[in-house]
Amino acid sequence: MQLTTLCYIEREEKYLMMHRVKKKADINQGKWIGVGGHFEKAESPEECLIREVYEETGLKLKQYTFRGIITFVTDVQPTEYMCLYTANAFEGTPRQCDEGDLAWIRKQEIMDLNLWEGDKIFLKLLIENAPFFSLKLCYHGDILQHAILNGKQLK
Amino acid sequence: MQLTTLCYIEREEKYLMMHRVKKKADINQGKWIGVGGHFEKAESPEECLIREVYEETGLKLKQYTFRGIITFVTDVQPTEYMCLYTANAFEGTPRQCDEGDLAWIRKQEIMDLNLWEGDKIFLKLLIENAPFFSLKLCYHGDILQHAILNGKQLK
Repeated sequence: MQLTTLCYIEREEKYLMMHRVKKKADINQGKWIGVGGHFEKAESPEECLIREVYEETGLKLKQYTFRGIITFVTDVQPTEYMCLYTANAFEGTPRQCDEGDLAWIRKQEIMDLNLWEGDKIFLKLLIENAPFFSLKLCYHGDILQHAILNGKQLK
Repeated sequence: MQLTTLCYIEREEKYLMMHRVKKKADINQGKWIGVGGHFEKAESPEECLIREVYEETGLKLKQYTFRGIITFVTDVQPTEYMCLYTANAFEGTPRQCDEGDLAWIRKQEIMDLNLWEGDKIFLKLLIENAPFFSLKLCYHGDILQHAILNGKQLK
């Protein structure tokens, strides 16, 4: 299994999105996602969050909220547990990184991007200020086969 | 790393506690903890919760709340990430299991039990109805060396 953080940094009704176009053999190739990455040894979710956001964007987070956990099941990699955050206070200006291209995207335009189908479910929950949630997403290739929110089947 | 659930089942101002006295070579030997255990392949936190509670107690959970995540760092095992729940609706009567002895303990008497020092921190948060939290606990043997709540150092 894998443990990661995923963060949507917020500014003026926009999220900082990463267009994953720079890495070969990237499960996210071509998709728009938030920023984040894998836990290092003995890190708490917050420690991983702050380190990964800094490494990928150059931003130092000053305020963040733990919004949910995503259980991401695919046929191509071990199950990934993603700790999902939003953040609305930071220092610095985003710099580019080698994982993808960063861009501020209006929340109302997010759903028009090339997103994982399941990401649309949790981005809607984030935008609507849903309380802490646990969402399980099961994919076969790119196709979302099951989505289970707080133990209840959505799809 | 390890991923587990830990649940405090509630009834009439009591929590269902397990006194870990049955297993040899148990990191929890002699301590009182909640019920739970390790994630199986591709399980969501809720799926692990429901299965482990049933296996250890015979109870079928009907309602539960995801209360926090504990990052449990020790010098004797890989880092453990514990998904912490309380539950206040269930079917069945607790039966004993081979992990320890189960007992309903009044919340006001919980702190008198033989507990991990860090468990006292999160049990207080649970009893006081704190919102979702992330708590990192670093031990050397049985001694709590650091406690970090939502990214802020407590100890």
